[in-house]
Amino acid sequence: MDKMNLTKHISSQFNEEIEQVRNHVMAMGGLIEQQLADALNAIASSDAELARQVIANDLKVNDWEIKIDHECTRIIAKRQPAASDLRLIMAIIKTISDLERIGDEAERIAKVALESFNSAQQDLLVNLDNMGRHVAQMLHDVLDAFARMDVEAALAVHREDRKVDREYEAITRQLMTYMMEDPRSIPKIMNVLWSARSMERIGDRCKNVAEYIVFLVKGKDVRHADDEKLEQDARS
Amino acid sequence: MDKMNLTKHISSQFNEEIEQVRNHVMAMGGLIEQQLADALNAIASSDAELARQVIANDLKVNDWEIKIDHECTRIIAKRQPAASDLRLIMAIIKTISDLERIGDEAERIAKVALESFNSAQQDLLVNLDNMGRHVAQMLHDVLDAFARMDVEAALAVHREDRKVDREYEAITRQLMTYMMEDPRSIPKIMNVLWSARSMERIGDRCKNVAEYIVFLVKGKDVRHADDEKLEQDARS
Repeated sequence: MDKMNLTKHISSQFNEEIEQVRNHVMAMGGLIEQQLADALNAIASSDAELARQVIANDLKVNDWEIKIDHECTRIIAKRQPAASDLRLIMAIIKTISDLERIGDEAERIAKVALESFNSAQQDLLVNLDNMGRHVAQMLHDVLDAFARMDVEAALAVHREDRKVDREYEAITRQLMTYMMEDPRSIPKIMNVLWSARSMERIGDRCKNVAEYIVFLVKGKDVRHADDEKLEQDARS
Repeated sequence: MDKMNLTKHISSQFNEEIEQVRNHVMAMGGLIEQQLADALNAIASSDAELARQVIANDLKVNDWEIKIDHECTRIIAKRQPAASDLRLIMAIIKTISDLERIGDEAERIAKVALESFNSAQQDLLVNLDNMGRHVAQMLHDVLDAFARMDVEAALAVHREDRKVDREYEAITRQLMTYMMEDPRSIPKIMNVLWSARSMERIGDRCKNVAEYIVFLVKGKDVRHADDEKLEQDARS
């Protein structure tokens, strides 16, 4: 287990500010987890009302991003943080950008619930739901890793993305086969396909956040490294 | 015309560092413009070799992102910039993240050139090419606006994205109709559809960069604002 102690500052007010911005990231993360869970539930129970609520709530996600971004800029200007504090601020700025876009994807996923599906099509949604639960778990785990600055947990999320990619390929193949058999269903099934793509992107973004955590704790930029190199760097 | 003068620093070395990082952003932008142009040319002339080159070159784009990111962090730690300098650094950090992802989309677009299309399908590619040229122009214009810190030019790019969205919807409809008429073509046409989606996303990302320019020059965060509010804020 590799964690980081961020609580050694000269100024206790600086401590409080850092703590507050971290709490805000967790609050934003919690909102997005809820949005994604609601989007999946809206599809599972054909609940158009809940889907509309997810779409409306995306404004709150956007507000969080801007708010936290300003807090980070203010801390840099006022406190001139160095070393690990500056890394934390940089990691937060990048993380909230990915979180905001996960929020956008949740909104896109919710739109599938505004369609109505026949029973054969409902069967296709089961795999979509499984994939959705899988990326929701990744999101939960990466936020948890962020809260605890836990490199091992971040690496586990990073590895998980490969499984999501395989799930996505399987769903894509299944949906294309269905469209070939029932071409009239194409416009509707395309929406399911976009939604699967959104989930795949959520996996990618959770992986990005996992990389920021490694950068933050280890001071090594592991973006775009292959998996093996990443794990090596993160553990050295 | 609303521009910004960034050349008044106490330290001339600071000036040079800021100038260098701006030049690097422009170099990265130039590389991505080339990548997108090559991807479009690869599709237009069915040039698989060129497509493979685009895919291989994406590593260089990634290297630029990491390099510029480190430069920005170093400037913050060493120079403790405030006000407009800090806004510039923050805008650069966000811009290169969008540029890197435009590079990813160019790579995805290039993959279409690895497919072979019959003559009816070639006709479908004409609209895709037009949309590609359109977003390539947006990318060029927003990089130009960035170089000159030109708010009006940034606003023009921002407006242009609505046209790209409409083009994308038209292409999607056309491709779906084609797939319904020739279901066996679905897997191949899906790749064209993903490519159109990538272009639409490039438009979105150019719009993001346009917003960072407004933020940088005017000090106002205009992300997620509707178009009218944005133009009002940017001009006040």
